[in-house]
Amino acid sequence: MKEITKLMESRSDIRVVDATLRDGGLVNDFHFTDEFVRELYLTNLRAGVDYMEFGYKASRELFDEQSFGKWKFCNDEDIRSIVGDNNTDLKISVMADVGRCDYVRDIGNKSDSPVDLVRIATYLNTIPAAVEMIEYVAARGYETTCNIMAISNAQERDVEAALEMLAQTPIQAVYIVDSYGALYPEQIARIVDCFMNVAVKYGKKLGIHAHNNQQLAFANTIEAVGDGVDWLDATYGTLGRGAGNCAMELLLGFLKNPKYQIYPAIQFVERYVMPLRKEGVVWGYDLQYLMSGLLNQHPRAAIQFTKDQRTDYAEFYKELIN
Amino acid sequence: MKEITKLMESRSDIRVVDATLRDGGLVNDFHFTDEFVRELYLTNLRAGVDYMEFGYKASRELFDEQSFGKWKFCNDEDIRSIVGDNNTDLKISVMADVGRCDYVRDIGNKSDSPVDLVRIATYLNTIPAAVEMIEYVAARGYETTCNIMAISNAQERDVEAALEMLAQTPIQAVYIVDSYGALYPEQIARIVDCFMNVAVKYGKKLGIHAHNNQQLAFANTIEAVGDGVDWLDATYGTLGRGAGNCAMELLLGFLKNPKYQIYPAIQFVERYVMPLRKEGVVWGYDLQYLMSGLLNQHPRAAIQFTKDQRTDYAEFYKELIN
Repeated sequence: MKEITKLMESRSDIRVVDATLRDGGLVNDFHFTDEFVRELYLTNLRAGVDYMEFGYKASRELFDEQSFGKWKFCNDEDIRSIVGDNNTDLKISVMADVGRCDYVRDIGNKSDSPVDLVRIATYLNTIPAAVEMIEYVAARGYETTCNIMAISNAQERDVEAALEMLAQTPIQAVYIVDSYGALYPEQIARIVDCFMNVAVKYGKKLGIHAHNNQQLAFANTIEAVGDGVDWLDATYGTLGRGAGNCAMELLLGFLKNPKYQIYPAIQFVERYVMPLRKEGVVWGYDLQYLMSGLLNQHPRAAIQFTKDQRTDYAEFYKELIN
Repeated sequence: MKEITKLMESRSDIRVVDATLRDGGLVNDFHFTDEFVRELYLTNLRAGVDYMEFGYKASRELFDEQSFGKWKFCNDEDIRSIVGDNNTDLKISVMADVGRCDYVRDIGNKSDSPVDLVRIATYLNTIPAAVEMIEYVAARGYETTCNIMAISNAQERDVEAALEMLAQTPIQAVYIVDSYGALYPEQIARIVDCFMNVAVKYGKKLGIHAHNNQQLAFANTIEAVGDGVDWLDATYGTLGRGAGNCAMELLLGFLKNPKYQIYPAIQFVERYVMPLRKEGVVWGYDLQYLMSGLLNQHPRAAIQFTKDQRTDYAEFYKELIN
């Protein structure tokens, strides 16, 4: 039995990663005000969060700069305009997707950058490309992790092979990413078990990034904590693609290390996240995401259903299963 | 490790209990239309739900009949007007609170009633009164369970003593009720362990009734299933007091017994539960309930915050901890 008392010991290897801008940017095309981003940075400092992810290092060839806010591209100077020299304990992260990032052109040396961590996101079938990116980024002085997406669709043998390849790179952690919000806690436990075999062998850490399709993003995250996963993604107010993510305010309330503070999180959600809803930004648990999660499908049809402001949920269920 | 495969075996002892009217009635003073109740009954039939709880057997001396809808009192004739002779596999339940029910006057013989199950709800300090009610109700031919409320505030030794007393009555199941929405899955596992020792000894079943203060009502329910709990409360669209309950549509999607069908649940939520929100009925996960759950407090202050249409969450947090 996992014991909450383990957490009373405040496992010092826990890393809380704020993915609000990065995953939330998928909902509003990264059109955050500078005030939002600056207050988020200050909130993370006060709340004791370990990493703040600003957004993506997306290819300017594949994505039109006019169509997105600046955090789709995360120029060093834009990050500097928020964090200055960032002489704090909060580390700065960006995400780079395999196949959607010109990393040789866009990622320079760590010594010139405010970024501490580059997280490489990949599907299972592009692991060799991910390995190349990891080696490149690590050689420039950054911390790196690798986020394996859509894990609920993966075959266990394929995962094992991928983990063996990744474990021989300089990554610090491999992330279990439940992109479809399809997994139950029992399955998280089983997947962590599979990942942990390799992680222990090579001295790597594990991470979890959950989605809230079945109201399980927080539950799956704390299940993973109990199973030995250290890197935990969360977003304020669950802001994130589709059904959203693990709520930062729930996670900070759960973690027993006194460095984590829930009050700044509540303030930020009240003052900055909830107003987004009034502005028309739509995210979070709803029946269409339950259905795509339950059926272990990519949320794109459910996101379209949301965009079209449809409310004929039963009809949508028929579409999904047909 | 709990295994989802256990559920693929469709444990035949599982009982899904629809508490939509009873817990939802706490949000709208039981003012449901007859159409709502009739459609709910038909939905439960189609969805394979095992029990439908119509509401409370509340004392007419303590509660003014003019102030509440009829499901606060659950007259046999009102239930009959919905279910007729109920020649179906769906059983009918009502709840009777210790100290808030004139059971000698208001509960007659099973042979004259459409009700199958009377659930006795009690706090730990009124167990002797609960035992008296259970004996009375069972003697009149009803099935009975006992729901121990506010379990997150209970001392384990007190719980053990209470369980020993209850186990010697004719109850079929004892319910773990997380009234405050304060418990994490790890704690559910530990509490089930404590309950199970007595349940196994006396041949009783266990039940779980969860609240969604920390987005864990569904997670705690399926944790309990994995730990061997058979009686599972849920409500359509999470409709219920404060942060609401375990969503029926999530639970039906999770259970692998083919008799459980999610599609009727989706239809009912779309057609009957979601419109309640537009009519101004307010329930479900929100920051004020996260806080009261996290602090292991009765939700009444959070419910008042909701009623007052306040949105100064950070201020409310200060009130709760002062």
